[in-house]
Amino acid sequence: MPNLEDLETPTLVLDRARLAANARRMRERALVLGVTLRPHVKTIKSVAALRHALPEVTAITVSTLAEAEHFAAAGYRDILYGVGIVPTKLARVQALRAAGVDLKVVLDSEAAAAALGEAGGLPVLIEIDCGQGRAGIAPDAPALIAIARRLGRQGARVAGVMTHAGHSYGAAEVAEIQSIAAAERDAVVVAAARLEAAGFPCPIVSVGSTPTALFADDLDGVTEMRPGVFFLMDVFQAGLGCCGGEALALSVIASVVGGRPEEGLLLIDAGGLALSQDRSTAGQPLDIGYGLVGPLDGPPWAGVRVARVNQEHGFVQFEDAAQAMRLPIGTRLRIWPNHACMMAAAYPAYQVVEGGTAIVDRWTRANHW
Amino acid sequence: MPNLEDLETPTLVLDRARLAANARRMRERALVLGVTLRPHVKTIKSVAALRHALPEVTAITVSTLAEAEHFAAAGYRDILYGVGIVPTKLARVQALRAAGVDLKVVLDSEAAAAALGEAGGLPVLIEIDCGQGRAGIAPDAPALIAIARRLGRQGARVAGVMTHAGHSYGAAEVAEIQSIAAAERDAVVVAAARLEAAGFPCPIVSVGSTPTALFADDLDGVTEMRPGVFFLMDVFQAGLGCCGGEALALSVIASVVGGRPEEGLLLIDAGGLALSQDRSTAGQPLDIGYGLVGPLDGPPWAGVRVARVNQEHGFVQFEDAAQAMRLPIGTRLRIWPNHACMMAAAYPAYQVVEGGTAIVDRWTRANHW
Repeated sequence: MPNLEDLETPTLVLDRARLAANARRMRERALVLGVTLRPHVKTIKSVAALRHALPEVTAITVSTLAEAEHFAAAGYRDILYGVGIVPTKLARVQALRAAGVDLKVVLDSEAAAAALGEAGGLPVLIEIDCGQGRAGIAPDAPALIAIARRLGRQGARVAGVMTHAGHSYGAAEVAEIQSIAAAERDAVVVAAARLEAAGFPCPIVSVGSTPTALFADDLDGVTEMRPGVFFLMDVFQAGLGCCGGEALALSVIASVVGGRPEEGLLLIDAGGLALSQDRSTAGQPLDIGYGLVGPLDGPPWAGVRVARVNQEHGFVQFEDAAQAMRLPIGTRLRIWPNHACMMAAAYPAYQVVEGGTAIVDRWTRANHW
Repeated sequence: MPNLEDLETPTLVLDRARLAANARRMRERALVLGVTLRPHVKTIKSVAALRHALPEVTAITVSTLAEAEHFAAAGYRDILYGVGIVPTKLARVQALRAAGVDLKVVLDSEAAAAALGEAGGLPVLIEIDCGQGRAGIAPDAPALIAIARRLGRQGARVAGVMTHAGHSYGAAEVAEIQSIAAAERDAVVVAAARLEAAGFPCPIVSVGSTPTALFADDLDGVTEMRPGVFFLMDVFQAGLGCCGGEALALSVIASVVGGRPEEGLLLIDAGGLALSQDRSTAGQPLDIGYGLVGPLDGPPWAGVRVARVNQEHGFVQFEDAAQAMRLPIGTRLRIWPNHACMMAAAYPAYQVVEGGTAIVDRWTRANHW
């Protein structure tokens, strides 16, 4: 059986035992909270990964139409496209709908609703802002009812409301995540009640982010949640308190190509393209640079990180130079990411392991747009 | 003819008129300096782009074996692989050589030379550090001759010396770039002379970075230069003084998907994946965030930039909110990068224009490893 030791580097590795454990945890959260789990596949972008993790799931969220098409081709029929819709994307949306996919879109203004043109029954979720300050209108905004009416005039259908508490990523402690989760819930519940009172049935009341999904106290009035990064987790999520090191399912294998080991510096063949330039942990107590570093077959080492990246070179800095001196040219290292979504996006596929270094499968990803 | 207005977003656009002008400028520099231009294709990663820009070029530099294979398949035979070689990559290297490609590799230690095993005549350039502090040995290091001898014992062949003045990217002014260019030249010329004196012919004496290639006073003793980003240029290179705004050949087209225009904020469908998370201009006098922003058919606007990115959302901030309010949902904007190499890497191909918005071609890229 091929092994991580046999692969060329850089290579993206997914541990499917950890993936499955992360999925079990989120499946239980959805049951306890009494909501449907409509996972966001923007992180995994892989039918095979989703089937392994959550074989019972039929409803998903996507961040691109490329993801929608990848999952639709595999038989998924209940898909929410979570980025504000624009007219030039409607042809692909309608092609998927014509093929039998119940693809729903999102918008947050009368202008965007008007831009749909004759919408042919397109189901639309109105996006609500629960405090992130990205997309969405306030739950009490007069525009909410105006958008719903406009959707009706365009021949679209109000399918519900959705929000994303992305600001939970900036929380300093779990209590703050819990408070954001309550605000996330309240935002869509208030908006849904207003729509219902105005005569617009609102079957979908949707929230979602991994931190709020993990720490919400209750989601009364919510029908579904859409976390995404929980599948793979990363060091940033660990820093937030969302997981421990045993949950980290994604890594990159790199090779030592040079360096000045006597100064505690090794160069690896994974740089800004192979690891991403994400620096999410820069604002956390434990700043890991561009990644934690460890051996192929175990957890990351303390005191070692990717301190800097160029396009195809990573600079691995060791607090203890003696450790670097024991790692000759060609040694494989395993790099653990700041942000799994960004690291994974550089690769067309995952090499799949299951707790060890034996490669048990290869899963393709739906990258691009 | 299709137009940028017709494309789905986000999309990568290359202006081949600007590409050709940038190439003319570098071709002239190579002639004036009396060296061969062995361009680094890590930025463009496209046979079609190279043929358009520099049809006479036959010698190239690559940053990955995927690039080497892409260009070899199109007939390029003189290829330098510029990242330190490791044993697991030798099989692909030797396969290319067996197919008639004169592929040369780089290393900087006796250990790396020993790791080649029986090298079968493999041509190797020894990497010299000219002050960047990444890879390479000092020009006067005793290791230089020891590496050459070791290469001989492994059945490899010393093909020359190479260095990369990556620290020219940190220069504060042109005079500093000139001084770095002199140090870059001196480093390899000294190393080559030492090798020759020790009985090792050194046919290739190679330098390379776009800033030093543009501003070097003379390259006496150097045989070739390997700039790469000059093909496309970017705002970081403009900030260094390497080009003006008319040289920027790469951009991304994005659509307005929402925002709060009355606050001067528009959301676009190009985020950290579509623009990269590169922040090269953070250390320059003009910090452009994640990109400058302008209309489809003209240069970027003053006072507008991509201030923040999430995975699939970009936050475009306008100093003048009235300007944002004139740009409805669906408006196409053109985003100009910090760092062309990183932005381009997210896309499988370029949409090619020639000074306007009409699409005249589509050129594929050799991404991944």
